[in-house]
Amino acid sequence: MLRHADRSITTASTAAPDVTQEKRLAAMRQRSTDIAAPLSPEDQVVQAMEDASPTKWHLAHTTWFWETFVLVPHVPGYRVFDARFAYCFNSYYVSLGPRHPRPSRGLLTRPSVAEVTAYREHVDAALQTWAAEGIPRGLRGLVDLGIAHEEQHQELMLMDVLALFAANPLAPAYRPEPVRTSSPAAPALTMTGFDGGIVDIGHRGDAFAFDNEGPAHRALVHPFRLADRLVTCGEWQEFMRDGGYRTPSLWLTDGWATVQGQSWDAPLYWRGDDRTGWTEMTLGGLVAIDPAAPVAHVSFYEADAFARWAGKRLPTEFEWEVAARGRPIAGNTLGSGALRTRPAAHDGQPLQQLFGDVWQWTQSAYAPYPGYRPAVGALGEYNGKFMANQFVLRGASCVTPDGHTRPTYRNFFYPHQRWPFAGLRLAEDAA
Amino acid sequence: MLRHADRSITTASTAAPDVTQEKRLAAMRQRSTDIAAPLSPEDQVVQAMEDASPTKWHLAHTTWFWETFVLVPHVPGYRVFDARFAYCFNSYYVSLGPRHPRPSRGLLTRPSVAEVTAYREHVDAALQTWAAEGIPRGLRGLVDLGIAHEEQHQELMLMDVLALFAANPLAPAYRPEPVRTSSPAAPALTMTGFDGGIVDIGHRGDAFAFDNEGPAHRALVHPFRLADRLVTCGEWQEFMRDGGYRTPSLWLTDGWATVQGQSWDAPLYWRGDDRTGWTEMTLGGLVAIDPAAPVAHVSFYEADAFARWAGKRLPTEFEWEVAARGRPIAGNTLGSGALRTRPAAHDGQPLQQLFGDVWQWTQSAYAPYPGYRPAVGALGEYNGKFMANQFVLRGASCVTPDGHTRPTYRNFFYPHQRWPFAGLRLAEDAA
Amino acid sequence: MLRHADRSITTASTAAPDVTQEKRLAAMRQRSTDIAAPLSPEDQVVQAMEDASPTKWHLAHTTWFWETFVLVPHVPGYRVFDARFAYCFNSYYVSLGPRHPRPSRGLLTRPSVAEVTAYREHVDAALQTWAAEGIPRGLRGLVDLGIAHEEQHQELMLMDVLALFAANPLAPAYRPEPVRTSSPAAPALTMTGFDGGIVDIGHRGDAFAFDNEGPAHRALVHPFRLADRLVTCGEWQEFMRDGGYRTPSLWLTDGWATVQGQSWDAPLYWRGDDRTGWTEMTLGGLVAIDPAAPVAHVSFYEADAFARWAGKRLPTEFEWEVAARGRPIAGNTLGSGALRTRPAAHDGQPLQQLFGDVWQWTQSAYAPYPGYRPAVGALGEYNGKFMANQFVLRGASCVTPDGHTRPTYRNFFYPHQRWPFAGLRLAEDAA
Amino acid sequence: MLRHADRSITTASTAAPDVTQEKRLAAMRQRSTDIAAPLSPEDQVVQAMEDASPTKWHLAHTTWFWETFVLVPHVPGYRVFDARFAYCFNSYYVSLGPRHPRPSRGLLTRPSVAEVTAYREHVDAALQTWAAEGIPRGLRGLVDLGIAHEEQHQELMLMDVLALFAANPLAPAYRPEPVRTSSPAAPALTMTGFDGGIVDIGHRGDAFAFDNEGPAHRALVHPFRLADRLVTCGEWQEFMRDGGYRTPSLWLTDGWATVQGQSWDAPLYWRGDDRTGWTEMTLGGLVAIDPAAPVAHVSFYEADAFARWAGKRLPTEFEWEVAARGRPIAGNTLGSGALRTRPAAHDGQPLQQLFGDVWQWTQSAYAPYPGYRPAVGALGEYNGKFMANQFVLRGASCVTPDGHTRPTYRNFFYPHQRWPFAGLRLAEDAA
Repeated sequence: MLRHADRSITTASTAAPDVTQEKRLAAMRQRSTDIAAPLSPEDQVVQAMEDASPTKWHLAHTTWFWETFVLVPHVPGYRVFDARFAYCFNSYYVSLGPRHPRPSRGLLTRPSVAEVTAYREHVDAALQTWAAEGIPRGLRGLVDLGIAHEEQHQELMLMDVLALFAANPLAPAYRPEPVRTSSPAAPALTMTGFDGGIVDIGHRGDAFAFDNEGPAHRALVHPFRLADRLVTCGEWQEFMRDGGYRTPSLWLTDGWATVQGQSWDAPLYWRGDDRTGWTEMTLGGLVAIDPAAPVAHVSFYEADAFARWAGKRLPTEFEWEVAARGRPIAGNTLGSGALRTRPAAHDGQPLQQLFGDVWQWTQSAYAPYPGYRPAVGALGEYNGKFMANQFVLRGASCVTPDGHTRPTYRNFFYPHQRWPFAGLRLAEDAA
Repeated sequence: MLRHADRSITTASTAAPDVTQEKRLAAMRQRSTDIAAPLSPEDQVVQAMEDASPTKWHLAHTTWFWETFVLVPHVPGYRVFDARFAYCFNSYYVSLGPRHPRPSRGLLTRPSVAEVTAYREHVDAALQTWAAEGIPRGLRGLVDLGIAHEEQHQELMLMDVLALFAANPLAPAYRPEPVRTSSPAAPALTMTGFDGGIVDIGHRGDAFAFDNEGPAHRALVHPFRLADRLVTCGEWQEFMRDGGYRTPSLWLTDGWATVQGQSWDAPLYWRGDDRTGWTEMTLGGLVAIDPAAPVAHVSFYEADAFARWAGKRLPTEFEWEVAARGRPIAGNTLGSGALRTRPAAHDGQPLQQLFGDVWQWTQSAYAPYPGYRPAVGALGEYNGKFMANQFVLRGASCVTPDGHTRPTYRNFFYPHQRWPFAGLRLAEDAA
Repeated sequence: MLRHADRSITTASTAAPDVTQEKRLAAMRQRSTDIAAPLSPEDQVVQAMEDASPTKWHLAHTTWFWETFVLVPHVPGYRVFDARFAYCFNSYYVSLGPRHPRPSRGLLTRPSVAEVTAYREHVDAALQTWAAEGIPRGLRGLVDLGIAHEEQHQELMLMDVLALFAANPLAPAYRPEPVRTSSPAAPALTMTGFDGGIVDIGHRGDAFAFDNEGPAHRALVHPFRLADRLVTCGEWQEFMRDGGYRTPSLWLTDGWATVQGQSWDAPLYWRGDDRTGWTEMTLGGLVAIDPAAPVAHVSFYEADAFARWAGKRLPTEFEWEVAARGRPIAGNTLGSGALRTRPAAHDGQPLQQLFGDVWQWTQSAYAPYPGYRPAVGALGEYNGKFMANQFVLRGASCVTPDGHTRPTYRNFFYPHQRWPFAGLRLAEDAA
Repeated sequence: MLRHADRSITTASTAAPDVTQEKRLAAMRQRSTDIAAPLSPEDQVVQAMEDASPTKWHLAHTTWFWETFVLVPHVPGYRVFDARFAYCFNSYYVSLGPRHPRPSRGLLTRPSVAEVTAYREHVDAALQTWAAEGIPRGLRGLVDLGIAHEEQHQELMLMDVLALFAANPLAPAYRPEPVRTSSPAAPALTMTGFDGGIVDIGHRGDAFAFDNEGPAHRALVHPFRLADRLVTCGEWQEFMRDGGYRTPSLWLTDGWATVQGQSWDAPLYWRGDDRTGWTEMTLGGLVAIDPAAPVAHVSFYEADAFARWAGKRLPTEFEWEVAARGRPIAGNTLGSGALRTRPAAHDGQPLQQLFGDVWQWTQSAYAPYPGYRPAVGALGEYNGKFMANQFVLRGASCVTPDGHTRPTYRNFFYPHQRWPFAGLRLAEDAA
């Protein structure tokens, strides 16, 4: 069995340079189990909505990934745990055969949580035995991909649990919230300027990155300014009070159709009104809005409308990358234990909250970089086939595993999706 | 705690005349728990489809019914277990306030199965204490309604579990099927004739019946003949081989639209084709079709089309009642332990399988009897408001609790619904 | 060419006993043309909604009916006008081959109105030549069916035009409304009692009737009372003011779902509110509500809820037929020229408005009479295959061609449909 | 009345440098009338599908545009033709008040074609009188916008008529097709290389362009190669025969969902199969596929999948602009009279068919250029609010009015839309 001393889901970064890949793998696998620990079997089996998946499915799918891409092809004598699981737990790899349909993942009450746990233990034991002899150099990239893949599902598990609990009239808490002393107001909004010019974009070097972060290439960026912190809940309340959700001229036409069709009038998990005050459903349960903390769970459409209302715009993904390159990758990520957004510091530092709190919507459509080629085989389906109709988000969120992100990291969602921990940072032209 | 020696779900009839209402109540409550016993917490929380409900919801809703209609109004000092449950577990009683939306019942991972069990025990204890002093005469009708209500949910629990397991690619068995020795062919189809004339219809007397079975009244019935057994799987295969599902002239226009829209080509739980043979998903798992056993899980549309193909018709509910009146209420109901349909006997008896195996579609739209008035108050919503767009079924099924049905019993479903254990008996004009 | 002196759509009854079938045919055919006369080619091609059809389609379909069922099989040497029209203008006769899909009827801008007119003239000429020698006795029933069929489409044409014009923000009038002097209040509601007993139901004798009106048979009816006039717009306003559309306990559950899903708060064509007053879109354009006139364009669900609110119920179709048998078939039908409902007379006569103003919803589901057998062949699809999920309406409406209806006539629509000229007459048990 | 000698819809370019704006305006207005001329009133009123609009609506909407943006604000004493038309014929200008809902445009049988013609004449007369004194310099940009706007609707009229006629089982021709002598095979596919580097993108100078073509700015383009002609129907047939529509690995995930959901297996207007041969519905009616002519009516998803199958990719919009800049704006546009695509010439020239035949899908999401600001007021809604979820197409099509396009012109559609005359040109990296 893979084991790890620290059972907290907020273990230190698995990417720390002095930790071996073998140890990172074990710690990462353990974290998935730890994330599920506060959940009952009932909690783990239900699918909150079509976009989400059950916890149990995440636990099994990530295990299937290791079994399918590492153990079966590369570990002689490995015995598949249950051949029927390939049908149940393949997510979207068309080249690997038919799958259980995504909207029906929540119907799989069998295999049980206990069986999935046994599946994880079976695969972990095989991985551990294999890794104990040292992971072969030629497979280290694949293992890095497996780690990064499961880290993505760890974030999804927390997103999906929040969606599930927010749909429950009892508003259960995933982890009860310690009382938070009220925050001081957020620091005033300031902007940092950048010159533009020909810049390097994308991942370069030997460290792991997803294929969609490359090829590294040059791009021309025009002078711009970027806000030194994220947009706050307090600012979002001003937007709401000013009729933001009722003013069509602020919205893209597809966004306005969504606002009206879905009757949006506040971020996804906000409850209440101006008279009674606003609360927010979080992983800590229903809590009062913190006006100084970054707004979360807004869609691209809302972020774009807010920026227009504020007389600014969203940054491009290249602008964001230019600003983030070389900065410390630190912030309110999973390791902080907050599980929700926190106010920016009053320390006068520029470009706070680059990595953490919420993923930041950019105005860039998710598209291949020049010269992009997906990998051959099933893993080639990982990123490339999603490159239409989605927008890039940069940074990280308060439920992103530490060590998972990079300045070149490209997250992506559809413009109407609100269940990610997503917010925004304002930008404007410098000229 | 209400307790009962026989933990089987196939306890003897709760309607046996020599059993006190107090004992019937206890035995009936226990049966709900017993039905849930083979299910994991995961199995109990998921909603297979919009028409179905989770097992846990059934367990809690029936408990809420006792709490709301018996304990709170009639037992001084009763302490409500959890005031929030009224919102979670009210089914459709509009007059009792807002409810959790039906299609989202499967999202309620909390309260947990353990909490619902505690809820049942809390309510059962109060019921037992109260009943121990003898149920007041004036409340015996209400208690009978509560028993009948929960018995209906017991049948629904088994219908809904089958729907859930049938959606699972692993095809789990609720209760593994003992090997069944192959049946001899069904007896040849014979018909019994009836004279018609002015007949008594509906429930009369002091014993419990639902309000929709009354008022008793006279009706004029024309001479008719009724088949002596149910339509079998073997006969249904003939219908299929003869192109039944591909011949529009056999179908009602709404039925044909459904056949095409849903791509129906066999009963709901049949799998396979003529080449490989047909199997059927049952509560015992995936088993071979038994050609001699009654066909189950067909809609009204299918039953009606089959009857037209066979040159016969469905009976009216009055014809069925005329034929069934005075016959023994016995057959393959829950108490048999079969949990699926069984062939008719070769004993030459007329009108076999009247009560049991499958509910029998009639050609009668579900409508109020002359002079029907729903009860005043929330319980008036029990039956009356569903009297449009549904058809009456008569008899009982292999998952109907023993003692639940009567010759005057009116079950009802929409004509497209297939998840009930429903089949058909043929009829024709006598003239 | 078939010609008729009186070009008005309100020609005297085509069923007058002293008129030959040949003349009735000619007059009836002319009426279809006359109904279309006030409409532009644009008006005639558009389909207002899926339930409706374009005027041009009605004109062509009824012509195709004569061509297909009379001319081709029975008139040697008849030349089909255009073989492609069978695909375009078959309505629902599955046995006659594939059809243009119903929801796309409005896309058929070709053949043009002019071509359809030529089609009508071609068929009328052939019919006239054929009829001039006397319609063979053996085909008189078929011709009666053809006449009745086209009369039904004449009513549909006016229903569908109203739906079309009601969707137009300019609210055009099919025929401008003469100023109507304000009506006196409706006579007070009185009820006429009936004894019940065994009664004769259904059509008997040689005169034409649809197959669904037979076989004639006996039925048992319980004592009842029937209102002497239809429910008025003024009474409907009381229902609305009393919160009728907001009180779930008044509604069938499917009705309540429809009220909420469709945001119903008044009859289909009413516009306005209590403050500004209510107007109604009619074939005469937008006019003020007449409180004394019968309410029209309400669904079965609304009629049923109103009756419950009024402490009464809808009649069964048998009760209605018992009351109507032997009464004069006269009232505000198409021949009156009103094209909308008119107040009942203050003459103290019982059972006014039996035939005319609006079709009257009954509580009877549309079902086959005992012994009903559809005709063999395509015409067997005329009525039988619709006998599920619909309710029977009796009487006639202000746009029903004179001579079309009978006491045994069974009209039918789905319980949610509101575009027919449909209203209600109250009933109650006599006991 | 504005009049023009040449009644053909294929009048010479309205952008010819030596033609005054006044004359261009008159000729352009006349062309709308000419495009409608072959259509009956019935043809002009029907809406083929939600994306399309009726011809009559286009004629009235473009007229409303002139009335609203030019005549009312700038021509003293102008009398609005009918104040109610603003509601009927506003397309999407939210700031100008409520509108008739887009999906219901086809219900407007009134105002009639004749009334819309009178509306056009009323507005044309006012425009002519006003223009006769010379269009004021300050309004010339607005008039250019009005001309370009109506030219866009002229293309839409022909797109929408084709959609309408393709839905008609009679397959009517908008303009009967002269017999086309069979084409020689298309020239072999060759590619022209480009160096890349920092390039100028977007419209510069005083001539009219849409706001979305600016601001002009610099961009960095990497070396690439562009096909010298468009992809042909013959090549598309190879893709189909090779299983292109059945191979998920060729498709973006949203594209594959669309292929399966819509059962796509050929371009939108193709009919037939490999055995019987393929025909195509065109404005000339149903004609045989010309293998040498460019494929049309394919979606972005299909174009993208084809390029992947061919081992190439779609160009970016910047690559296309770099290649097109400075080339003659000539080709098979509306003025050619072909109304469908034509084979490329065998003259060895590079980069044929840049402007004409079909709009060319690029891989670029439709997004604002750096520094883009929509105009203030209602006209600011023209382009900006559509900048999400769509892709840019470049060039022109065989139904684009001559003089309408430019190398910087950015057309845009959703990736699933197939009713535009859209095809593709292949590209690849040069390195």
